Amino acid sequence: MTFTGGLENAVEDAAVMLFRRQLAQQLRVDSIRASAAVRLGHPMYSMSAAELMAVLLDGHLRLDFPYPCDPRRDHLIFSKGRAWALYYAMLKTAGAISDEELLGFPKFGRWPLGHSLQCTLPADVATGSMGQGLPIGVGLALAGRRLDRLPYRVWVLCGDSEMAEGSTWEAFCYGGREGLGNLTVVVDVNRLGQAGEIMLGRDLRRARAFGWQAIAIDGHDVDAIDRAYREAATNTGQPTVIFARTLMSHGVKTVRDRLGRRGRASDDPKGMIAERPSERRLRVHVVRPGIVRRPHRFEVCGQGNLPRWDLGAEIATREAYGKALAALGHRRGDIVALDGEIPGATCSEPFAQAHPDRYFEMFMAERQMIAAAAGMQARGWVPFASMFFRRAYDFVRLAAISKANLRVVGCYADLAIGEDGTSRVAVEDFASLRAVAGSAVLHPSDANQVPPLVAQMADRPGISYMRALRSKTIVHTHPDEDIRIGGSRLVRGSDDDDVTVVACGVTVGEAEEAAAELERDGVRVRVIDCYSIKPIDADALRSAARRTAVIVTVEDHWLEGGLGEAVLSALADQPHRPPILRLAARDIPDMPGSGQPAELLHAAGIDAAAIVRAMHSHLTTTANAATSVSALDEKAA
Amino acid sequence: MTFTGGLENAVEDAAVMLFRRQLAQQLRVDSIRASAAVRLGHPMYSMSAAELMAVLLDGHLRLDFPYPCDPRRDHLIFSKGRAWALYYAMLKTAGAISDEELLGFPKFGRWPLGHSLQCTLPADVATGSMGQGLPIGVGLALAGRRLDRLPYRVWVLCGDSEMAEGSTWEAFCYGGREGLGNLTVVVDVNRLGQAGEIMLGRDLRRARAFGWQAIAIDGHDVDAIDRAYREAATNTGQPTVIFARTLMSHGVKTVRDRLGRRGRASDDPKGMIAERPSERRLRVHVVRPGIVRRPHRFEVCGQGNLPRWDLGAEIATREAYGKALAALGHRRGDIVALDGEIPGATCSEPFAQAHPDRYFEMFMAERQMIAAAAGMQARGWVPFASMFFRRAYDFVRLAAISKANLRVVGCYADLAIGEDGTSRVAVEDFASLRAVAGSAVLHPSDANQVPPLVAQMADRPGISYMRALRSKTIVHTHPDEDIRIGGSRLVRGSDDDDVTVVACGVTVGEAEEAAAELERDGVRVRVIDCYSIKPIDADALRSAARRTAVIVTVEDHWLEGGLGEAVLSALADQPHRPPILRLAARDIPDMPGSGQPAELLHAAGIDAAAIVRAMHSHLTTTANAATSVSALDEKAA
Repeated sequence: MTFTGGLENAVEDAAVMLFRRQLAQQLRVDSIRASAAVRLGHPMYSMSAAELMAVLLDGHLRLDFPYPCDPRRDHLIFSKGRAWALYYAMLKTAGAISDEELLGFPKFGRWPLGHSLQCTLPADVATGSMGQGLPIGVGLALAGRRLDRLPYRVWVLCGDSEMAEGSTWEAFCYGGREGLGNLTVVVDVNRLGQAGEIMLGRDLRRARAFGWQAIAIDGHDVDAIDRAYREAATNTGQPTVIFARTLMSHGVKTVRDRLGRRGRASDDPKGMIAERPSERRLRVHVVRPGIVRRPHRFEVCGQGNLPRWDLGAEIATREAYGKALAALGHRRGDIVALDGEIPGATCSEPFAQAHPDRYFEMFMAERQMIAAAAGMQARGWVPFASMFFRRAYDFVRLAAISKANLRVVGCYADLAIGEDGTSRVAVEDFASLRAVAGSAVLHPSDANQVPPLVAQMADRPGISYMRALRSKTIVHTHPDEDIRIGGSRLVRGSDDDDVTVVACGVTVGEAEEAAAELERDGVRVRVIDCYSIKPIDADALRSAARRTAVIVTVEDHWLEGGLGEAVLSALADQPHRPPILRLAARDIPDMPGSGQPAELLHAAGIDAAAIVRAMHSHLTTTANAATSVSALDEKAA
Repeated sequence: MTFTGGLENAVEDAAVMLFRRQLAQQLRVDSIRASAAVRLGHPMYSMSAAELMAVLLDGHLRLDFPYPCDPRRDHLIFSKGRAWALYYAMLKTAGAISDEELLGFPKFGRWPLGHSLQCTLPADVATGSMGQGLPIGVGLALAGRRLDRLPYRVWVLCGDSEMAEGSTWEAFCYGGREGLGNLTVVVDVNRLGQAGEIMLGRDLRRARAFGWQAIAIDGHDVDAIDRAYREAATNTGQPTVIFARTLMSHGVKTVRDRLGRRGRASDDPKGMIAERPSERRLRVHVVRPGIVRRPHRFEVCGQGNLPRWDLGAEIATREAYGKALAALGHRRGDIVALDGEIPGATCSEPFAQAHPDRYFEMFMAERQMIAAAAGMQARGWVPFASMFFRRAYDFVRLAAISKANLRVVGCYADLAIGEDGTSRVAVEDFASLRAVAGSAVLHPSDANQVPPLVAQMADRPGISYMRALRSKTIVHTHPDEDIRIGGSRLVRGSDDDDVTVVACGVTVGEAEEAAAELERDGVRVRVIDCYSIKPIDADALRSAARRTAVIVTVEDHWLEGGLGEAVLSALADQPHRPPILRLAARDIPDMPGSGQPAELLHAAGIDAAAIVRAMHSHLTTTANAATSVSALDEKAA
């Protein structure tokens, strides 16, 4: 019996392995066909990983492709985005797309691994930029462990070049530290020759030094692949990385396996396909997740008041952010917070204390932080990442391409942070974030503006960025005022204003001071607090443009791409509009520097005195040009 | 004799060690005094590394502080920028600044580790942002090995938090691969307790797995420090990392060594100083470099022609860049090129072939690439870094703060790259780079514009960025035309133009096509090729604004922060200017996508048809509003 059973098992095993080899051949040929059909892409990159993905599909991945929205499913990230053809070949094999659709990718409007297909395809994020997939995988695995509390697995297919990206090592660092046994990374090592072997040995040692289980295999041996995947599943205390030695064109003689062919579409797809006759109709019924329970949800009371402050109180907007986020966490169980070892500075500390289970300390690894947030939001969580905003911009913009819903709060970005100086200041944040597709860019000037904006950020799709102030400002906004993304606040103004100042953040106070001084000279000043820089309140600006003789914008940011240009943009197509003067940090030597906040604002020319000077100089010029601004008439008298 | 000699040596050694301990105490006390004097900073961060820096100053660093411009000198990078007070205490000890000056830092206009002091101080770069110093150190060490060919050493002082930054591991990866024996990194491990010890062991293993000599010592034991520095100097085939266990407030009882005190200025500096009475007048005559030979210079003919193309030729600007850079390399021996494993795509291949000694393959580690370039330029080399521009933005902006002279050439940034799709496209490059202090942003539209711009980039201080096109464009610019940073090109136009189109890069061709069509409708069109987006040719734009009824800008970039806003900016203070309509990629679902270049330009609304449509729609509106554009009168007839 035992003997017979053993024999039966052996026969069955052999049949399974034979099927997987045929499946790999089908994936390989379909990859060539898909690439050739659109005369694009890199069939080589797909071909090397065919066995790796065949074995994954047939027996390890628990992902019912036709129902990818099942919250218990495994996640597969194709970090090696150039192998898109293989990905679509897998979808065909799993019955998610037809052969005709396979040959139709990528046509315009359907991205390779694009997010527009997310509802029908199980891609969680857009990939292709090196070193992104693994850190996002860490985020998904973290969500599985600590948020969803489900045993789904996260699989990441990486290329070997990605091993040089620092973000990859941030992920190794974090994944090892957290012991993410639900994460398996398969590295397709298709480099050639001796150097490849040396690299492989080195990478094994490195991964182990970061606390990972590391396994080296022949990436075309379906038996070895199967064993490695089993080992990965068995080790629940450590993440696993499988380094698979592969050849780009395993078994295809017409293609020499040399570096020069990397990245080039095949010259002779027909020859390649002819050389590898294969079944084209193999189907795999990918295992459905065998989990019955639902994802964990954090219990909250479902309500609770957002904080509010009395008029005249002095408080930094970063503190208001911290309190608002903690309060929002009491209302909503889906809010999570991430921080890069500076929760005291960014003020995510109150959230960490109130909701320790939903707080993630990501240490000084900003890319891993943003990627982890991207992974968590793919599971439906609502992450707020707090940081000194100056790092990880590339990951933020790539998250936008993945249509991720992320909230980033940057502290210590402004010149007004004072003595800390130079390396902290990030006065290009408005410009760089405005240029992220679908983003919102916010910069509240006082504490009462913060809670409504934070609450709205939680609901808003896409990337929402808020710059929080380190220094205290006086609360001028009534807690019941209508503060909203896309809005603005009329700080002072009436129907007969002469001029307008548009400010945000710390410059709102300067604008008020300047307005008071100008009114003493008889100039009536409208002051707009433009706390929402994108989208901007175009109506308020157009109204000011119609009614006042000049608009001065003033911002704690470089001249380029910030508030000033956002205002110009809003008024660009107006045939008649007053001159717009912009006060902003310019290319001044030694700027940004270290000093008292007031010194710095003064040196940058964005303080009250600079506003007054700009107004006077403009009004004088205009008066000299014999135009009639009544205030100036008096002044000239 | 031998015995006596041994005794004498032992006595001498003991005296040296005693002196170093006193020196450390002086550095520690001076750090507290400097921090207290300006009520700022982190004396704790300085105090832990006092012995480490005392031993470095007295016997290992070869840097004549009063003459920091000696090209043979060692380099010291304070990556742990928060320890600025210790750095200035060292300068005092070395005789570079007085005690009064020590207590005056950092006052406004004098940065902590700022670059404005570079002529008098030996700081090569501004630091303080985590994970930057080590990659820059790799660049300096590379320059020492392969460019200057001098045995100077590079020392980097890091904090332990930086070990989580991916850029640190990019540097470990590259430094190990290159076997940079001239590089020593000292990590001040001032974390507390058991976790610290575990981390230390882990970091040792990791560093060794990356091919480094790794040594762990007690960072307050001057003897052990001395031995470690000697070991570092002896191992010429490997870089060395020294993990030094330290206590933040070694020996100062009034300060508890607990995490809560990290980052806070001392509450009681006087108490701390009183507890540690020390000499304040110890001086170290830091060893001058004992090298006699001059830095290596590459021999070149000193001239040679830049490439030029016939009008009507079809060539991609990236290819023109590659050829221009290689040619410039023949003229100038100080030009160096760096690439991230894609020299075929960025076209830095011709340079690599012509000047292999000055070409650096940095693999897929874009931050390390930019940091290496920053290190090389600090030694007077003229680096051009070529990449898919989408990574390393944070390192570029920090290089600007260091007043580094860097040239970055980004390829595959535009939508028009076509099928490669989504993750490659970086159509926020203009916005993000314009907002870098002192930057230039260039985007030539044809091959003949490239060589003069590349030559000017080499001479230009600050950050210069050029976006190069992947796809071929037709050469319209005569090779002898005046093409310059800050210039523009009048593609077509006369004194009686009706409207203006401002374009750059691939949209110039679209603008020409649109202009031809509009002229058939009787609308005279001026087309400006605005290849220099920052600085922009304000004169040409003002002239167009005066003479034409509408300006349409069209760019292969998001709407925010690019060419359109640069044009608005240039005309912002003009009291009378025509409406400015902007065509750019907007927040369209599935944008950027994958498709044929023409499909993508059409979908983004930045092709010839879109320009024609925008003009017609504007002119019709204006005509309906009963203004008289003569062309329209005809059209309406």
